[in-house]
Amino acid sequence: MANTSSTHDVKVLGAWPSPFVIRARIALNIKSVEYEFLAETPGSKSQLLLQSNPVHKKIPVLIHRGKPIAESLVIVQYIDEVWSSGPSILPSDPYDRAIARFWAAYVDDKFFPSLRPIKSAQGEEKAALVKQVNEGLVLLEEAFQKSSKGKAFFGGDRIGYLDVAFGSMLGWLRATEKMGEVKLLDEAKTPGLVQWAESFCADGAVKGLIPDTEKIVEFAKLIAARMKGSGSS
Amino acid sequence: MANTSSTHDVKVLGAWPSPFVIRARIALNIKSVEYEFLAETPGSKSQLLLQSNPVHKKIPVLIHRGKPIAESLVIVQYIDEVWSSGPSILPSDPYDRAIARFWAAYVDDKFFPSLRPIKSAQGEEKAALVKQVNEGLVLLEEAFQKSSKGKAFFGGDRIGYLDVAFGSMLGWLRATEKMGEVKLLDEAKTPGLVQWAESFCADGAVKGLIPDTEKIVEFAKLIAARMKGSGSS
Repeated sequence: MANTSSTHDVKVLGAWPSPFVIRARIALNIKSVEYEFLAETPGSKSQLLLQSNPVHKKIPVLIHRGKPIAESLVIVQYIDEVWSSGPSILPSDPYDRAIARFWAAYVDDKFFPSLRPIKSAQGEEKAALVKQVNEGLVLLEEAFQKSSKGKAFFGGDRIGYLDVAFGSMLGWLRATEKMGEVKLLDEAKTPGLVQWAESFCADGAVKGLIPDTEKIVEFAKLIAARMKGSGSS
Repeated sequence: MANTSSTHDVKVLGAWPSPFVIRARIALNIKSVEYEFLAETPGSKSQLLLQSNPVHKKIPVLIHRGKPIAESLVIVQYIDEVWSSGPSILPSDPYDRAIARFWAAYVDDKFFPSLRPIKSAQGEEKAALVKQVNEGLVLLEEAFQKSSKGKAFFGGDRIGYLDVAFGSMLGWLRATEKMGEVKLLDEAKTPGLVQWAESFCADGAVKGLIPDTEKIVEFAKLIAARMKGSGSS
């Protein structure tokens, strides 16, 4: 199916800084599916986005043959199922799939919500968030050691579902280290993840999608300034 | 595989009031898998639970051949994939699967978090929560009309993934109506869901699992009294 899809068939509504958008794009790259990237302007929502995801009004949205699909992990699974002739994204064994889904949910429900506010947090609040993220990274290191079985990725020899789910956060992880002046990924505590992060960003399906740390820092400052200006916090 | 599994192979760690536990049990019933139900005592956590789900320490946990799986939607998908000879829980079409996954995530991320606090909320806060839940029910009514295509369930002729994800909440929905003195499921605004709720609770795989409204009300009062006593809110 991959080879018969024209660019016109597949659209991604997104924005470069969003880790959730990056997931959809990596998944399409894994399957060698060409797509049109429709960039949303930060701070505004296109008519197409509002129509395509009326419930959450959020990116990413994948539009395949005119049908919209929202929620990044739903999109990644859809891509895996539709372009099933390409390399599998989810593990083939049901138990391994369950474990990958468990940790992907952990990344969304626990890890990222703690990571996100570190850059602007102070004092005790910041210390508590950093502690949570560090504990999360130790758990993910253990999960990596178990899942990868000595290979480069959570998915083994090639990047899979949890690699995509967690790896999409690496740009923000590094930018948070810089902005928050904290060490998160650490050679001593999470040696497997340090190595994995390098392999992940160098992978052919990922290259060019994880934004440079400096670029994210600049973007985050811009957003913070805009929110301050508008009275939001 | 269903017929070769002994009760000993499959255990569910749970508690009768939890909608998330109910999901796992319905899924096993759909596949005609016998299982041992290990009831956790509310307010305490067994050693087996702490060992089986060290990350979240929450029910449900499915233990299959000694291997634990946590997170209710992950469990339901695992059950669907392992006992694949039984009736399918997820739709067979990838787009329909994506839509079912989207709404199941909606139920967990938006619907239930608004429903849960209504019973003890007051004034404006309560009005806002009821409004959110009612808006959610209208969205789910639309999703039902589209997915069911005139049949009894979101999954068509038989209960499927979204039926399980959303239907598991029906006991708490009714108990919330009673405790909060509000009307949520409504013949005028959500006629499809009213009919669906009846069909769902009468289904062979569900019968006996959705607790009576009175029983939940009693349980909720007990928990509220206990939390008040311990100084929590």
